[in-house]
Amino acid sequence: MVATTPTTTVPKKLETLEQYKEFLDKFDTFLLDCDGVLWHGSTLIDGIKDTLDYLRSQGKNLVFVTNNSTKSRSSYVKKFNSLGIDASEKDIFSSAFATAVYLRNILNFPADKKVYVVGESGITDELKAVGIETTGASADNGKHLEHTDLGTFEQDDQIGAVVCGFDINVSYYKYAKAYKYLTKEDVHFILTNNDATFPTPNGFLPGTGSLVQPLINALDRQPLVMGKPNQPMLDCFFSNYHTDPARTCMVGDRLDTDIDFGLQGGITTLMVQTGVSSEAQAMDPNQPIKPTYIIKSFGEFIKTRQ
Amino acid sequence: MVATTPTTTVPKKLETLEQYKEFLDKFDTFLLDCDGVLWHGSTLIDGIKDTLDYLRSQGKNLVFVTNNSTKSRSSYVKKFNSLGIDASEKDIFSSAFATAVYLRNILNFPADKKVYVVGESGITDELKAVGIETTGASADNGKHLEHTDLGTFEQDDQIGAVVCGFDINVSYYKYAKAYKYLTKEDVHFILTNNDATFPTPNGFLPGTGSLVQPLINALDRQPLVMGKPNQPMLDCFFSNYHTDPARTCMVGDRLDTDIDFGLQGGITTLMVQTGVSSEAQAMDPNQPIKPTYIIKSFGEFIKTRQ
Repeated sequence: MVATTPTTTVPKKLETLEQYKEFLDKFDTFLLDCDGVLWHGSTLIDGIKDTLDYLRSQGKNLVFVTNNSTKSRSSYVKKFNSLGIDASEKDIFSSAFATAVYLRNILNFPADKKVYVVGESGITDELKAVGIETTGASADNGKHLEHTDLGTFEQDDQIGAVVCGFDINVSYYKYAKAYKYLTKEDVHFILTNNDATFPTPNGFLPGTGSLVQPLINALDRQPLVMGKPNQPMLDCFFSNYHTDPARTCMVGDRLDTDIDFGLQGGITTLMVQTGVSSEAQAMDPNQPIKPTYIIKSFGEFIKTRQ
Repeated sequence: MVATTPTTTVPKKLETLEQYKEFLDKFDTFLLDCDGVLWHGSTLIDGIKDTLDYLRSQGKNLVFVTNNSTKSRSSYVKKFNSLGIDASEKDIFSSAFATAVYLRNILNFPADKKVYVVGESGITDELKAVGIETTGASADNGKHLEHTDLGTFEQDDQIGAVVCGFDINVSYYKYAKAYKYLTKEDVHFILTNNDATFPTPNGFLPGTGSLVQPLINALDRQPLVMGKPNQPMLDCFFSNYHTDPARTCMVGDRLDTDIDFGLQGGITTLMVQTGVSSEAQAMDPNQPIKPTYIIKSFGEFIKTRQ
């Protein structure tokens, strides 16, 4: 949807105050990945709070982007506030909210249809907020099939889409229902994000992109994937926020998700070195995914306040 | 393990009494697929009971082969008896029993190690019968993780293998545990069968090969697949029954599972036309999987009783 060609040249390093100011002048809106950019787990990265406050005082629009679909934007606001960062719902763009925007603005989801959700309250709350009725999710937690029930469980004829996100209460009951709905070709199949695993305090565990695999394998059908690095999330962003793509910059710590997300959408990207990817990786001539700019930390921009 | 080259020539049609007798004289052991060969659902195919009785009276060894891992052999005996077919445990070769044989005879699974099972009692009963201790399966039914538990759930250091089969009580708790065990490279990863879906009275539903996908996707690791058409099941068969491969014939109704299973293992195959695949498919010059012989029904052999 954006005409600019992704950069394949060497990333520009931002190192001096003058370079910081010149960079900031180019953009009105920053899309900010959270973990590795703003915080590590529950610890804010140095200088972040002051930087965010200062950029806002300069009229910059800051939008926090997350693939996590388990929380609604209002729940995220609480997480931001608990870390001392001001945020309201309009500042948060999650894969669950993007899914709601997609169904409402892009698919024009019919008013007489419902969505079956394999996922958590982040999805059902956001769909409800745009006026879309849901079934499944927590309403199906604890429901169980016996082998003798397999041919007889009830189905809802009004289902027009199945949305899958992370669901810690996933079950054969939910898989079987979702599968049956999705055997109808006109039922949309949407995945909030495709992350194979996600980090926990005790290492990685299977993520949304893994939990959906039984459906993909049984149906031999691929879902539309919403979250980073896939483009529907960016399409939904511009459909909802109407910012100028040429003055919008994606900021992230991972080349394969955040930076690829911005590059594929043809917007400028800034890689910070406070998370997963390193300067050496970004500068590697064999690295196909290169950010437009790199900087040590997003917190560096506080230095432009004088 | 068997030297014969799979046939690629035109299948021989068995149509006359003389052809039936000549065929039967070549074999001592018949491996029989069940659904589509012996019965449809819970209805026996014409002539089957009398044929099985007669072939046994002639000294033939009949072994029933199934990919279904949810029932133990003793439970299968009850199903056979309820349909009027004589059977004892030694006559039944299921993917769950094959898995037990594999762990015991082929892997020499250590006595101080246990198996974590995502599956049902068919697996745990068969492993117990060969002296292998299990955890998981029904013992983990109903167990649940909260988001706050994800880094802290208990693990068992004695796990030496994870066996996955169909589990109608599959859960995030089971996936997370199995994933953690399988991140250790020396923990074996075994799948009873790879069927993407299975038939129910109300159409297909996701099967074992689909339910295991979250682990495969999150681990980027492939399991050893036991069941038809994969060869470990046939290796385990010969490891357990010690029949002469040259005088053993695989009988089935599906080219892509039963016949491929026999062909890959280098044994003779007989396709019956009472199930999924047709004579036209078997005779198609573009069909890469061709049985050695085809016959209308396994029940035809009753005509050799005079």
